[in-house]
Amino acid sequence: MDFDLALSIDVLARTPATLHSLLSGLPEPWIRGTEGPETFSPFDVVGHLIDGEETDWIVRARIILARGTDPEFEPYDRFRHQSRNVGRSLVSLLDEFARLRADNLDLLRSWRLTAADLDLPGLHPSLGPVTLRQLLAAWVVHDLGHIAQAVRVMAKQYSSEVGPWVPYLPVLTDHLTPRS
Amino acid sequence: MDFDLALSIDVLARTPATLHSLLSGLPEPWIRGTEGPETFSPFDVVGHLIDGEETDWIVRARIILARGTDPEFEPYDRFRHQSRNVGRSLVSLLDEFARLRADNLDLLRSWRLTAADLDLPGLHPSLGPVTLRQLLAAWVVHDLGHIAQAVRVMAKQYSSEVGPWVPYLPVLTDHLTPRS
Repeated sequence: MDFDLALSIDVLARTPATLHSLLSGLPEPWIRGTEGPETFSPFDVVGHLIDGEETDWIVRARIILARGTDPEFEPYDRFRHQSRNVGRSLVSLLDEFARLRADNLDLLRSWRLTAADLDLPGLHPSLGPVTLRQLLAAWVVHDLGHIAQAVRVMAKQYSSEVGPWVPYLPVLTDHLTPRS
Repeated sequence: MDFDLALSIDVLARTPATLHSLLSGLPEPWIRGTEGPETFSPFDVVGHLIDGEETDWIVRARIILARGTDPEFEPYDRFRHQSRNVGRSLVSLLDEFARLRADNLDLLRSWRLTAADLDLPGLHPSLGPVTLRQLLAAWVVHDLGHIAQAVRVMAKQYSSEVGPWVPYLPVLTDHLTPRS
């Protein structure tokens, strides 16, 4: 499917409500479970998405749109949320994410990006040359990937409770070696 | 994590709203995309979950609770929805799923299941002996697995739009060989 700005914004706008429906009010053991060391719990996923709003997608789009001679992005800290959100509740993080996302999408809409704008280049510190279009598409896929991760991690908390059903429930054996 | 009936019902009750937030109103190409032949689109996922409400989880729980001499379940038709839902809109399926799920959870709550009830046996036609507890845990995991599937299939529609970001977005390379 070709990139479509309005549709991308539509999908990005859904993520806070989707995560709220999925997670808000769940007991701590379910929102704190992980797939192993260095992997994210559903709580971590929300924190990581907040980090993306504050330090990644829109920040990098601004660098591209500034059309400077050095459009290289800052490296992204995947574990910023771990120290940032000590003592926070999941509900407060979900609310904060919803506010940040709404503001960032208002800003994105206000830019009224053209096809030519979407072709503008940036430089990813490890992936190399990218376009604004690819950055925005990656933002959409990144959201969806982390929703899938939160759901998968929840499912795995019941791995030992489903008995012989494991082979019919492939979500339980996805990412046995953590990949994200 | 040990099986908990109230928590399981809480998670099962969230699925209709989660899918509504994620999918309701999306354009056809996004809700009809798949991961290849014989795999489910997000539209198919909602239809498959409706089939589960009508022919699988509660039907099988009733067989177990009947304490008959032959507690073997009927085989489950994973593709019933394909003929059932021709011409239906996604919104109407989401509404139907929400009604069926609410009714089934009302029924499940009304049974006031004890720990002894949860140990009662059933016979899966291919997996063999199971308990009611395992059936209900599998219902929860099945929901979460199919939410993850819908999200993953959506993400893959942008596989060719993210350019060099693919290795940082593992959802795009999950289930390259379809598993569910």
